[in-house]
Amino acid sequence: MSTIEDVAKLAGLSRTTVSRVINNHPYVSDDKKKRVAVAMDTLGFVPNSAARRLRKQKAETIAVLVPRVTNPFFSKLIESLEMAASEYKYKLIICQTRYLPEKELEYLQLLATKQVDGIILCSLQNKWEHVEPYLEHGPIVLCNEYAEEAKIPTVKFNQIEGAYEATKHLLEQGHRRLLFCSGSEQSMVVQHRKMGFLRAVAEHKLQVEYMEFIENAYDIEDGRRVFHTISHMNKIPTAIFAGGDEVAAGIISEAKRNLWHVPEQLAVVGFDNQLLSEITEPAITTVCQPVDKMAYKVIEVMMDKIVTKRYRHKEIYEFDLELVVKGSTVKNMMMLA
Amino acid sequence: MSTIEDVAKLAGLSRTTVSRVINNHPYVSDDKKKRVAVAMDTLGFVPNSAARRLRKQKAETIAVLVPRVTNPFFSKLIESLEMAASEYKYKLIICQTRYLPEKELEYLQLLATKQVDGIILCSLQNKWEHVEPYLEHGPIVLCNEYAEEAKIPTVKFNQIEGAYEATKHLLEQGHRRLLFCSGSEQSMVVQHRKMGFLRAVAEHKLQVEYMEFIENAYDIEDGRRVFHTISHMNKIPTAIFAGGDEVAAGIISEAKRNLWHVPEQLAVVGFDNQLLSEITEPAITTVCQPVDKMAYKVIEVMMDKIVTKRYRHKEIYEFDLELVVKGSTVKNMMMLA
Repeated sequence: MSTIEDVAKLAGLSRTTVSRVINNHPYVSDDKKKRVAVAMDTLGFVPNSAARRLRKQKAETIAVLVPRVTNPFFSKLIESLEMAASEYKYKLIICQTRYLPEKELEYLQLLATKQVDGIILCSLQNKWEHVEPYLEHGPIVLCNEYAEEAKIPTVKFNQIEGAYEATKHLLEQGHRRLLFCSGSEQSMVVQHRKMGFLRAVAEHKLQVEYMEFIENAYDIEDGRRVFHTISHMNKIPTAIFAGGDEVAAGIISEAKRNLWHVPEQLAVVGFDNQLLSEITEPAITTVCQPVDKMAYKVIEVMMDKIVTKRYRHKEIYEFDLELVVKGSTVKNMMMLA
Repeated sequence: MSTIEDVAKLAGLSRTTVSRVINNHPYVSDDKKKRVAVAMDTLGFVPNSAARRLRKQKAETIAVLVPRVTNPFFSKLIESLEMAASEYKYKLIICQTRYLPEKELEYLQLLATKQVDGIILCSLQNKWEHVEPYLEHGPIVLCNEYAEEAKIPTVKFNQIEGAYEATKHLLEQGHRRLLFCSGSEQSMVVQHRKMGFLRAVAEHKLQVEYMEFIENAYDIEDGRRVFHTISHMNKIPTAIFAGGDEVAAGIISEAKRNLWHVPEQLAVVGFDNQLLSEITEPAITTVCQPVDKMAYKVIEVMMDKIVTKRYRHKEIYEFDLELVVKGSTVKNMMMLA
């Protein structure tokens, strides 16, 4: 294999100049950059990144821990993060934790072994005290998750407000029997949404007849199961906060298959404003989360922390959510569709 | 921070024994393993993986290159690969290439820098001659992709047969004006599906009135666009091979919004048998790809290649696809749904 000296010789430049070009050193003329590029290409020379990284003490790689890549919310978030990181010439490696605390710790090791420069945690199943020691090795930024005791940068959505608006909308449509669906109760996202839901209910408490809660609902299949559960309840709810568009789609399609009228008999609110929410009939009223904005902020914060190394204090960046009303909660919307 | 000596002292064992436990050496009693685990836990000792990996010359990590994680086919594939790798105690890192040849090469560098032990390529936008040099650094396995000249293990689906069956089904329903939708023509998956499509058409060539082709259709949004394109054609096709369930869902929902009858006026076949294919009305006739089987085979092959280092020859593992007929192509299916 060819060496850096071969490249220097072919390009007619010093070894130092070639090294500068490879390491993106400033103050190298475009002409020299070009000559080095041509020589590298001709010789098939690949700079030794391992050695280079060691010198620079940077992996130029960030790890993102997500619970499940098959969840469209997370796959969209990954895509946005990857594009944002790309603008800083950083590689992104994605690690799926499947909501397993031990997987989270396994992947946090990537920071200890210097395989990555920082970790974006979109999954937090461990107690904070088990994650905190890894800060010794580099920055960790929380994304879409939240831990009260974590003194690190956190970028999130205002889930309380989002769930409050969605629930208020259902109550304003006259619903008095409500069902709240969610994923794991351990997640702060779920806890915050529940707070928002309960706040709206509290404001209408004289009218609300009852409310029910169902946990561990994540996808279309779960949505179908939710429909069959409620259809066998003594008092059947008339409105569902589904926690996600996939769950909402499962509920709606199964309800229609059983000849229920949506939204007259059953109103459903999703979450995410996925393309899927336009496919069901009626389309799904949902809460839009500005994933792109969050992703760009997370990467911006991470880049700052990698450079300044000052990441051991709490900073919260929060984005607002927006309710998008469609046919699954308001009847005359169907005419517009 | 505590050292391996501290662990040995607390466990009342020799340093060598502790090291053996950490490195999963055989012939260590369960009792000793347990004592080491307790001591490590008590001291909060984390084995130095970097040093350990160096000794073992293994990263215990595999990289998977996929074009887009937002495509449900790839996110399902990633999930299955991750679970299969997990059984071998391997970590998976996922790299999104966005169909960009330069991103592919960038991530292939992970092999050269020993950050990973092997690479699973589910994305191949480069000419094989540009990928081939990386084999010097470790095994590469092609997954769901194919390159005639690549002398490496390849695990794939029989796309030719799958597309042939789907097209034959449309022809048997009496359709004579066909549209073939696909992603990039550069992909071998697309080329093979086109071969299958054309083979079925050739068998019915006396009856076929015409066929059209549309490229770069990937998601629901593209499906909607396809509908509007065909609705303005001079001769409107009556049957569409959509290339994916998302594209099919976009076509169907837009057709229905414009008061077309599916399947009477327009029959649509998807690909993937995603949950989404059950949500549209009617449900989508689709081609089921056994993603799990493929994923487990890929990991099995990769593990073998990492150990034996004999990976520079062609081996093809192929799985059959299955047509699942639903309401988007056969009218009386709707009664069953």
